[in-house]
Amino acid sequence: MTVAVYLSLEDKTQWWVDMLADLLPGWTVKALDAVTDPAEVRYAVVWRPRPGDLAKFPNLRAVVSIGAGIDHVLADDKLPRGVPIIRTVGDDLTQRMREYVALHVLRHHRDMPRQLQAQAQKDWHAIVVPVAPRRVVGVMGLGNLGSAAARTLSALGFTTRGWSKSPKDIDGVDTFAGPETMDRFLDGCEILVNLLPLTQQTAGILNAGLFGKLAPGACVINCARGPHLVDADLIAALDSGQIKQATLDVFHVEPLPADSPFWDHPGITVTPHVASQIDADTGGQIIAANLKTFDETGTCADVADAARGY
Amino acid sequence: MTVAVYLSLEDKTQWWVDMLADLLPGWTVKALDAVTDPAEVRYAVVWRPRPGDLAKFPNLRAVVSIGAGIDHVLADDKLPRGVPIIRTVGDDLTQRMREYVALHVLRHHRDMPRQLQAQAQKDWHAIVVPVAPRRVVGVMGLGNLGSAAARTLSALGFTTRGWSKSPKDIDGVDTFAGPETMDRFLDGCEILVNLLPLTQQTAGILNAGLFGKLAPGACVINCARGPHLVDADLIAALDSGQIKQATLDVFHVEPLPADSPFWDHPGITVTPHVASQIDADTGGQIIAANLKTFDETGTCADVADAARGY
Ligand SMILES: NC(=O)c1ccc[n+]([C@@H]2O[C@H](COP(=O)([O-])OP(=O)(O)OC[C@H]3O[C@@H](n4cnc5c(N)ncnc54)[C@H](OP(=O)(O)O)[C@@H]3O)[C@@H](O)[C@H]2O)c1
Ligand SMILES: NC(=O)c1ccc[n+]([C@@H]2O[C@H](COP(=O)([O-])OP(=O)(O)OC[C@H]3O[C@@H](n4cnc5c(N)ncnc54)[C@H](OP(=O)(O)O)[C@@H]3O)[C@@H](O)[C@H]2O)c1
Repeated sequence: MTVAVYLSLEDKTQWWVDMLADLLPGWTVKALDAVTDPAEVRYAVVWRPRPGDLAKFPNLRAVVSIGAGIDHVLADDKLPRGVPIIRTVGDDLTQRMREYVALHVLRHHRDMPRQLQAQAQKDWHAIVVPVAPRRVVGVMGLGNLGSAAARTLSALGFTTRGWSKSPKDIDGVDTFAGPETMDRFLDGCEILVNLLPLTQQTAGILNAGLFGKLAPGACVINCARGPHLVDADLIAALDSGQIKQATLDVFHVEPLPADSPFWDHPGITVTPHVASQIDADTGGQIIAANLKTFDETGTCADVADAARGY
Repeated sequence: MTVAVYLSLEDKTQWWVDMLADLLPGWTVKALDAVTDPAEVRYAVVWRPRPGDLAKFPNLRAVVSIGAGIDHVLADDKLPRGVPIIRTVGDDLTQRMREYVALHVLRHHRDMPRQLQAQAQKDWHAIVVPVAPRRVVGVMGLGNLGSAAARTLSALGFTTRGWSKSPKDIDGVDTFAGPETMDRFLDGCEILVNLLPLTQQTAGILNAGLFGKLAPGACVINCARGPHLVDADLIAALDSGQIKQATLDVFHVEPLPADSPFWDHPGITVTPHVASQIDADTGGQIIAANLKTFDETGTCADVADAARGY
């Protein structure tokens, strides 16, 4: 049983090869670029494969995404049709995303960026904000990560809304489903968190039209995927004041190029795609377990729906 | 029934006078400095009264602290003995402190200060930190505010400890009581939150000895009172690396003087005593209700214990 491993971050590929080899005794684990006989490869474990990487393997049974999203796999237009894609999720991923969302919602809620500016000017300036129950926060996407984030925000005391495709029932969260509810979901939202998967429907969803529907001076946190955001629309909305502050963890191009206006825009906090990572150790165990289950049963719990795109 | 009002922040006194007058129909409410007949004053509502302010009133029945702490009242060495001190607490105060503690613990946990430095240098530098369950956080003081803060941190996923004078039982929090348990409480603590009241026992408790007992490179958050901290010890511990970062909301002298080394120390975040404020509207209602109850029954739920100091 041969597993081919590829991560766009070159220095990590060999590390993952060794780790998975340890966790899958009896299997052969190789760097994708080291495979000499493509016919022997049954599984590929990848992060941002290059177009054509996966089409090389005629006997591929499944692709594993090292991450919760499968957009980086579907982005390959030569991807062999019909091969199941297994995503990687787990408690650590959810926990880290809860932390990130709580941190950045609270930062904007308490206006830490302005508070830190005051400190830099040695200005004893108390910024008065409402208590969290009087602050409306919205989470777009109520999957694994979005529902956990929404629950966490509600537990912190925020008036919390959530938006998804199909209806949800989450304690303490006011839920909205489908495109026809979107305007009501956005209306009055003061802090918006994006945790949608990247699909044809959601690409560019964070745009001028959406910003205009939020409360004036709202804050936006994008911790899903870079292409959810129309970059120029955010800059314009920040400059007009419609958006006060934004925190961005993900970008069209990563690492964020040095000439991006995001780096030094006073209204933007940049984090380098760290909202939630698959911890390599835990992630390896989850992936190895999924591969074993898939190999024995022909499926596993984390198989994504390639047709709908997540 | 005359109530004398004094706040060290001059511009707020008249505002409080008007507000309390509205809430206490039939009572006389005056600025303390506008009282001409001291004998008529039955109650004083104060924030940081000047020494001797309260000794002027021979018929004083109770003093109301506009705040959860009574240290600023007890600091008056001419304070008439035996006059009950009523502190002001409520849901908003607790809610705001939960937010502040969650925000600043998460900031240190995810090393936001260093992440922001990386952004300033356009450096795509991912800071890898453990998940919250593998992070030990300690809360000193498990009263109104400390117990709510500890519960919030535990719900966020942190391994949470709490320390108080008498034993407590708080779901999800590992509790320690009394001075003899202090070393065990501190041992391995990576983020420490101070929510003790300021008393003779607790003044200067955040000192070199305590810092040395925390995990190396720990972070400290002081949101109780300035004199809990030995300022020079903190600077030394930051400079040696024993403490990595500190967030200070309270100071020996407030507003923090312009020449304080805290303002521009790279390891220190300064917030201007905003962790939790009594929202003036809600606070007024709580104080008016406490005064009415005290006046009718001779006591109320929020009477502090002046002998123990909190
Ligand atoms: N920045 C980071 O570090 C990081 C880390 C991990 C993941 N992520 C991103 O987070 C995303 C979400 O992860 P997840 O595990 O929570 O995904 P998930 O479990 O697949 O959930 C996706 C959610 O989005 C909703 N949704 C999808 N399309 C929609 C549409 N057109 N309109 C409204 N709602 C729609 C889904 O609705 P239904 O429930 O009705 O299907 C579901 O609630 C991932 O795709 C990835 O891009 C980022
Ligand atoms: N920065 C701000 O904006 C802000 C706002 C409000 C309040 N505060 C500060 O926060 C403090 C705490 O407020 P609170 O309402 O939570 O107070 P509280 O209800 O009186 O609770 C005090 C806690 O500290 C414990 N304690 C007292 N002395 C101790 C000692 N020597 N050793 C160990 N534990 C000790 C008490 O233990 P027992 O339970 O065993 O008595 C209790 O758990 C206030 O006093 C005030 O200074 C700051």
